[in-house]
Amino acid sequence: MIAGIDIGGTSTKIGLVRDDRVIDTVRIATAGHDADGTAPGSAFADAITMAVRGLQEKHGLVRAAGIGAPNGNQHTGTIDRAPNLPWKSDVPLASMLTERLGVPCTLGNDANAAALGEWRYGAGRGCNDLLVVTLGTGLGSGIITGGKLLLGPYGNAGELGHTTLVMDGRLCTCGRKGCLETYVSIRGMRQTYLDLADSSEPLKQEGVLPIAEQARLGEDAAIQTFRDTARWLSIGLANAVAFTVPKRIVLFGGIARNGDLLMSPLMQFFEKDLFYIYHGKVELMLSALPEDDAGILGAAALTALAD
Amino acid sequence: MIAGIDIGGTSTKIGLVRDDRVIDTVRIATAGHDADGTAPGSAFADAITMAVRGLQEKHGLVRAAGIGAPNGNQHTGTIDRAPNLPWKSDVPLASMLTERLGVPCTLGNDANAAALGEWRYGAGRGCNDLLVVTLGTGLGSGIITGGKLLLGPYGNAGELGHTTLVMDGRLCTCGRKGCLETYVSIRGMRQTYLDLADSSEPLKQEGVLPIAEQARLGEDAAIQTFRDTARWLSIGLANAVAFTVPKRIVLFGGIARNGDLLMSPLMQFFEKDLFYIYHGKVELMLSALPEDDAGILGAAALTALAD
Repeated sequence: MIAGIDIGGTSTKIGLVRDDRVIDTVRIATAGHDADGTAPGSAFADAITMAVRGLQEKHGLVRAAGIGAPNGNQHTGTIDRAPNLPWKSDVPLASMLTERLGVPCTLGNDANAAALGEWRYGAGRGCNDLLVVTLGTGLGSGIITGGKLLLGPYGNAGELGHTTLVMDGRLCTCGRKGCLETYVSIRGMRQTYLDLADSSEPLKQEGVLPIAEQARLGEDAAIQTFRDTARWLSIGLANAVAFTVPKRIVLFGGIARNGDLLMSPLMQFFEKDLFYIYHGKVELMLSALPEDDAGILGAAALTALAD
Repeated sequence: MIAGIDIGGTSTKIGLVRDDRVIDTVRIATAGHDADGTAPGSAFADAITMAVRGLQEKHGLVRAAGIGAPNGNQHTGTIDRAPNLPWKSDVPLASMLTERLGVPCTLGNDANAAALGEWRYGAGRGCNDLLVVTLGTGLGSGIITGGKLLLGPYGNAGELGHTTLVMDGRLCTCGRKGCLETYVSIRGMRQTYLDLADSSEPLKQEGVLPIAEQARLGEDAAIQTFRDTARWLSIGLANAVAFTVPKRIVLFGGIARNGDLLMSPLMQFFEKDLFYIYHGKVELMLSALPEDDAGILGAAALTALAD
């Protein structure tokens, strides 16, 4: 049994994984006030430890724990100043938890965790050349090539979301312009819809739900939003193929799950946008992992790297 | 001593490499009429064999040979129908030469050979996370990551030249639109210059020489051509960094060698175009290999993969 710890911007999910499934979970806040004189992240590490111990009391001991985090650095085991997390310095969470839990703890970034999760437990099973793209608030990606996670010298390779799609295009949260994730993400799609609908009224519901609802009612701007997003994603994926040549691409996240709205135009564009030497060689698939469990499974899969 | 065989569209250079240097070379035509009943490429393999034997008579025996070729497939040892070579079916040149020369022969694609050549003999020495970009008629690239050549499942990973820079941009020889190499290559630069100079007169000299000459004379369109090319290349390189995170990028080929005309604006743009987590972490360098020897050294470096 392994513990999977999935750290998000506001909450952290902690679960136990046995026989390739999540058997129980708890959720805590991604926060914690560090008392004076203690290291940054100490209180948070204490809270995680309490949660894991609570789960262990019900289900038995874990032999390892994996931690997926934004800006998680697999080489150092630290969370490196992530813009959307409360700590303003690097947090050595892997060593903090190894000490507290007494089992080996492996930390990696959330996009790589998602890739490993799909590879070990999901739609990427058995495929040693894999690209996993997470379509959420931003666009994350993790790459497996030749049966190994591609880390790069600093543990942060595979940042498809921050490749330039449109030179001097939309302003990105990273400070540059035209990044793929300013077009292909929840934020990006809401922007595209507002532009196309020529509306100044803010969308009432969260995520891409209001756009999907309008598209199903046949509204042109909403249908075109999915179509434009599909084309942009298709170009981004075709570019990714030209670097590491995955045999399979798995798409994860709410945007991709909107039935045919995204996938049908995407399939149509993608084969045409691929460089000809890769034609017919790259499968496009949706993740089949339960959305609530995926982060935990991915985090748990990180422990395999330490095995 | 190793033989390096550098196959180009019209001619093939064959050289002997000893102590990291090319000691002698001969050049033959990339051609040969295959007699009825012989396999495609037989006559060419015979001609290469003759040339290697001639060199061996002067300098002694080689222990291996490496072959760099357009569309060279390292997994199979074949040249797969390259659009600019005379054979319309796959040519199993590695096995043909291994049989004829009686030493192990390794075949790979020319962009990967260039990357290995820089890694083993050139500006990439000692750097295990490397990107080598060849700026010629087209734009080729080879990637070393974690001390290994990135091949992908079909031996054709690392096609930076055929990533999309401008959606629905210039028509590429590959049939798609907006590929990086339609902007950043000899062909691309000549197009850019003609567009900027608003001239319908064809350029008189080959390559980028006429543009470089005009730029040195202070002509606006020529200076702007180098500037635009530098910006486009900068975006292409920054995108490449986001995939495999090279610590060093080596630029090879005539375009890059035009002194400060390209490199000075490129250096300026590149750091700004990089995603912030990679700032200050990627060196940009010019190849220091003699242009005539680079292809032979690269081909020779392919043999290290078989060692």
